[in-house]
Amino acid sequence: MGRTATPLSGCAAIRPRLWSECVAGLTKMVDQPVWEQIGSSFVTHYYQMFDSDRSRLGAIYTDASCLTWEGQQFQGKIDIVKKLTSLPFTKIAHSITAQDHQPTPDCCIMSMVVGQLKADNDPVMGFHQTFILKNVNDSWVCTNDMFRLALHNFG
Amino acid sequence: MGRTATPLSGCAAIRPRLWSECVAGLTKMVDQPVWEQIGSSFVTHYYQMFDSDRSRLGAIYTDASCLTWEGQQFQGKIDIVKKLTSLPFTKIAHSITAQDHQPTPDCCIMSMVVGQLKADNDPVMGFHQTFILKNVNDSWVCTNDMFRLALHNFG
Repeated sequence: MGRTATPLSGCAAIRPRLWSECVAGLTKMVDQPVWEQIGSSFVTHYYQMFDSDRSRLGAIYTDASCLTWEGQQFQGKIDIVKKLTSLPFTKIAHSITAQDHQPTPDCCIMSMVVGQLKADNDPVMGFHQTFILKNVNDSWVCTNDMFRLALHNFG
Repeated sequence: MGRTATPLSGCAAIRPRLWSECVAGLTKMVDQPVWEQIGSSFVTHYYQMFDSDRSRLGAIYTDASCLTWEGQQFQGKIDIVKKLTSLPFTKIAHSITAQDHQPTPDCCIMSMVVGQLKADNDPVMGFHQTFILKNVNDSWVCTNDMFRLALHNFG
């Protein structure tokens, strides 16, 4: 009720067949493209988990997932979680300024987040993070993750 | 000469077979992973072309490519170039602060760029942009492109 059948629009128009394969089982009674829904749900979930208990983030990665964190590369859920839990702060809060989502040619979803974070008593900092989400055995996992603080030398 | 055979490292380790299929014909006598080379060459090429004559950028997109520019969605090289050439500045210069590249599960390359730009006489602004590059008929094209200015409300 209150939700109308909206044709997949924008980038979806190019690959309705592909997307109907990719998202088989997902309802099309949607108010926004499926990748926007999946991407934004993932993003909400990711930062909620990061801010509350980042040791649990292993659940979203696979053993083949790649993380590039401030230029450092990690692979696999174990090494990724080891990195994330070793970050030198105890309290962190993310705030999302903008997020964008697109379907990729291979039935994945790319999500780019621009936001701000506050770690312990440090000043608020800008950050950007990009994820690729892939449907594996009917659930969405993160295969690729890149994070950078927005540290520029404006001098 | 001076270039040594470096085993594919980091994320490549997980999918040597896949990558050897993807990059068939590319030399492995490399100083850095192939996706770093391809990604950084693309990034250099993209911003050089953007800053000198962005009407020529159509060459890097396909008719299925997606661009999200400050939240607005465009698809296909014609609409993408129309958007890029209609941006309201005549002179622009990008400066790259950091770039990261990863292989994706589907033989693509994800590249994330953090940088600064100066358009006409506006103040320098931060930006972030993420690309997915795919090998189509032996050349690399950009299938996905997302751009955001780093405009936060720090209030």
